[in-house]
Amino acid sequence: MTVVGDPVALGLDFGTESARAVLVDSAGRQLAICENAFTHGQITETLPTSGERLPKHFALQNPGDWIESAAAATRAAIQQSGIDVDRIVGIGVDFTSCTMLPTKIDGTPLCEIESFSRIPLAWPKLWKHHGAIEQTDRMNDIAKERSESFMDRYGGTIGLEWFFPKVLETIDKAPEVAEAAEVWLEAGDWFVWKLVGGDAANLPRSTCQAGYKALWSAVDGYASDDYFLAVDPRLADAARDKMPGRLLSPGENAGTLCEALADRLGLPAGIAVAAATIDAHAAVPGVGEAGAGTLVMVMGTSSCHMLNAVQGKPVAGVAGIVEGGILPGLFGYETGQAAVGDAFAWLLKLLNLDSFEKISSDAIALPAGADGVMSLDWMNGCRTPLMDGSVKGAFTGLTLSTTPAHLYRALLEASAFGVRWIVDVLCQGGVPVQRYVATGGLPHHNPAVVQIYADVLGSEIEVHPSQQGPAVGAAVLGMVAAGQGKSGFANVADAARAMAAVPEEQKRIVRPNLELQGIYRDLYQRYRALAQKLATDQ
Amino acid sequence: MTVVGDPVALGLDFGTESARAVLVDSAGRQLAICENAFTHGQITETLPTSGERLPKHFALQNPGDWIESAAAATRAAIQQSGIDVDRIVGIGVDFTSCTMLPTKIDGTPLCEIESFSRIPLAWPKLWKHHGAIEQTDRMNDIAKERSESFMDRYGGTIGLEWFFPKVLETIDKAPEVAEAAEVWLEAGDWFVWKLVGGDAANLPRSTCQAGYKALWSAVDGYASDDYFLAVDPRLADAARDKMPGRLLSPGENAGTLCEALADRLGLPAGIAVAAATIDAHAAVPGVGEAGAGTLVMVMGTSSCHMLNAVQGKPVAGVAGIVEGGILPGLFGYETGQAAVGDAFAWLLKLLNLDSFEKISSDAIALPAGADGVMSLDWMNGCRTPLMDGSVKGAFTGLTLSTTPAHLYRALLEASAFGVRWIVDVLCQGGVPVQRYVATGGLPHHNPAVVQIYADVLGSEIEVHPSQQGPAVGAAVLGMVAAGQGKSGFANVADAARAMAAVPEEQKRIVRPNLELQGIYRDLYQRYRALAQKLATDQ
Repeated sequence: MTVVGDPVALGLDFGTESARAVLVDSAGRQLAICENAFTHGQITETLPTSGERLPKHFALQNPGDWIESAAAATRAAIQQSGIDVDRIVGIGVDFTSCTMLPTKIDGTPLCEIESFSRIPLAWPKLWKHHGAIEQTDRMNDIAKERSESFMDRYGGTIGLEWFFPKVLETIDKAPEVAEAAEVWLEAGDWFVWKLVGGDAANLPRSTCQAGYKALWSAVDGYASDDYFLAVDPRLADAARDKMPGRLLSPGENAGTLCEALADRLGLPAGIAVAAATIDAHAAVPGVGEAGAGTLVMVMGTSSCHMLNAVQGKPVAGVAGIVEGGILPGLFGYETGQAAVGDAFAWLLKLLNLDSFEKISSDAIALPAGADGVMSLDWMNGCRTPLMDGSVKGAFTGLTLSTTPAHLYRALLEASAFGVRWIVDVLCQGGVPVQRYVATGGLPHHNPAVVQIYADVLGSEIEVHPSQQGPAVGAAVLGMVAAGQGKSGFANVADAARAMAAVPEEQKRIVRPNLELQGIYRDLYQRYRALAQKLATDQ
Repeated sequence: MTVVGDPVALGLDFGTESARAVLVDSAGRQLAICENAFTHGQITETLPTSGERLPKHFALQNPGDWIESAAAATRAAIQQSGIDVDRIVGIGVDFTSCTMLPTKIDGTPLCEIESFSRIPLAWPKLWKHHGAIEQTDRMNDIAKERSESFMDRYGGTIGLEWFFPKVLETIDKAPEVAEAAEVWLEAGDWFVWKLVGGDAANLPRSTCQAGYKALWSAVDGYASDDYFLAVDPRLADAARDKMPGRLLSPGENAGTLCEALADRLGLPAGIAVAAATIDAHAAVPGVGEAGAGTLVMVMGTSSCHMLNAVQGKPVAGVAGIVEGGILPGLFGYETGQAAVGDAFAWLLKLLNLDSFEKISSDAIALPAGADGVMSLDWMNGCRTPLMDGSVKGAFTGLTLSTTPAHLYRALLEASAFGVRWIVDVLCQGGVPVQRYVATGGLPHHNPAVVQIYADVLGSEIEVHPSQQGPAVGAAVLGMVAAGQGKSGFANVADAARAMAAVPEEQKRIVRPNLELQGIYRDLYQRYRALAQKLATDQ
């Protein structure tokens, strides 16, 4: 039964194709969840304004879509819930990242200005836009030459999808756009800025996006002027002069909802707004986890495994360690596997099968180790710990008796060994993992994978029932931003537990088969040996 | 136009499921080819006499089937050809090997004696009978301990399918059979003995079978008494006392057709009979090749690549080097790949495809190197040069874009790299390959594989049109055994050329694409590197 007066938070979750709005009250009741697809979706073929064919690797979005879809989803959620909008005390925003754009000093996206609207690089670049290959290489080469210390936090590699390579791509290929740009910023930050209004000097930037995608740390700020100068003086100008704002952790108060956006969303002005966060990272509070030591495994086409720790230590092989990067007051460690559900789907297609049903039951019936068939799950490179997109997948141990089920079991096991490797790297770096929570779509669609993960890790895994982890996480952060007076919560941990955790008696726990521990320990060592052999010279 | 008086030879080819009879005249005209299936085929499930269920790994045959099928096929061939049987001057025999049996001193198979007919190990063991695993290990261990020099000729390994492990298996598991045995011999030798009749002391044993399967060499004879004693005194007894006969090269005259068998086959007595040969080895004269320097590639479910050389040198990695082993007066080098057509068929089934048609054309359309996908063709172990049945196949370089055609092309290329490796090993051992001839069923069913072989080898390959290479080869050897007076041929080379070679203008030559030489050189080096990495610890 809904208590009429319980405070409610709005979580806005911006994905690749749509925006979702979720309303959650302080007792964890999901009052409504509504989705609205972006009118232009991903812009990968032709530019809407000119019809110009886009180069390969391009993936853009339209800022107008973000506002429209967020407004439509929010209005629908309010209607669905039937609540009085005055109960909404906070708004949280999670966004894909690094999705970024150039704007004028008042926040107007350059692509909305007539003279730039037909230039593809004036538009927001979606996270998966891969136009900056050459720029990424240049930034990496120079960072390595200069032994830049920030590289330690990123495992020695700047990613192709990150913020400054995307800026540099525009500087190189559309200098007129780069010159006209007055502010470069993440889309999530842009949306929060739109929500709260105000000057560029005060625009609320998220430590999550800045830390994981823009070479920023709480101690050192962004990479140094000298480094940017060595790459390109125009990049140094951009970093120095076109990155105004203040850095806030997810859940910190970024301001209050302004009149203009209140009108669009159908909400009263003045509601507290939280600093933005990256979608995957929002899943951490979204499954009720706001303490140290729990690995939150967001499993989908790829997997993002996140861990909070009290101390921040560089760990070789871990690409993102950001103070306040996931939650205020903790060091967030981001690790990941580049192909999980994607790799399973690829194998199914490769084997000319229509459904996982038969192959999955056949695979489960095989012994651990798939009769000697072994896989490397690098069909899309290896994120953690190799941080190498160029390594590739493999199957070994093949005989004339090898069946499709052997390949599938080997791939499931390889995916599990990949997680175990990440956990080993974290533990050896002094950042222990004490508990596992699985979320995202995959654990629900594919229960076999969670069982094999539990067996290989030798540990229980809690499967969180929510498939809306990021949206709920955004709502938790929005609630926290409202402050204890309005929300009743003193910190993120309390809010996450109350709003997103599953009651103990309802938890779905997958338990490991302890008889397999010895076998999997040996198999894991063989996987590591194979990984070492095949990581080079493929 | 058939010249009435041209001499004719009968080739008898004993396979796993049937016997074939071919009649070929001295001008190379195939006058008839007839096949007759063995009544009991391969005996792998239950013993015909008792209905007793056979252990796993057992594969037996019935000697009565050999006589019956040979007689039926020969009579049918005579009828089909319409020739006067007096024109038949010689008979050659090729047989699977090592297919072997115990007999009494008069050649009666023990399995035909009532008191032994219900004991599986009294029956002939087919080449693929794998009951002697433990015995093979023991013989290898002791040979290595004693640093037996014969091991050099076999690349350091005695094979599971060879002669003495099969003898020792019976000594161990059916001592009453081993004790009753008075002669141990190859099935091909047994059949030739039946053809010519006579005492056991004169039974014609083939240097081919003895050399490749029974630790025999022209210089040293069989392995030493000391060695056999160290393995088992009963094995030493068998080798010393139960191996009567004289060693003859394939094509050497073993005697003349006796009355009894002449009646069975419908031929006049007195026809010259050649010493037996192994089926694959008969393909060498069977494609018209009886000189040094040509690699004859008999390609089927597995491949046997044979080379004759003037000198005999030990080559590390080459398991069989036998003086007079393939043809009189030359050193025969036998090399092989354990899974070729078998591996392609396995992949097709793995990928749930019904036909090679589409995947083959898709694979051919891909660039050399299959976009980075690479395979090891060890789905049934590696014969030459690793001589290791325990190594296993692999696919590497897999990405989310990898398709079935990529896997197939990679496997075709791996098979070709496997041949190139064998050729490298031979050349580095001082045994050069100057020419390539492909025969067997696969080159005809799968032209893509021959083109890729040619491209990878950087050499022309002649595809011999005969799919009856072994049977024709047996006929060539039979013709030679008749002697120059009757056959008109002074040696095997002349007979092979006249009876089995394709006229120059009719030769089907597959030419290499020379533009791909550099690419394939690099890819081959990568294959070798991968082989080195994965040959251990799989």
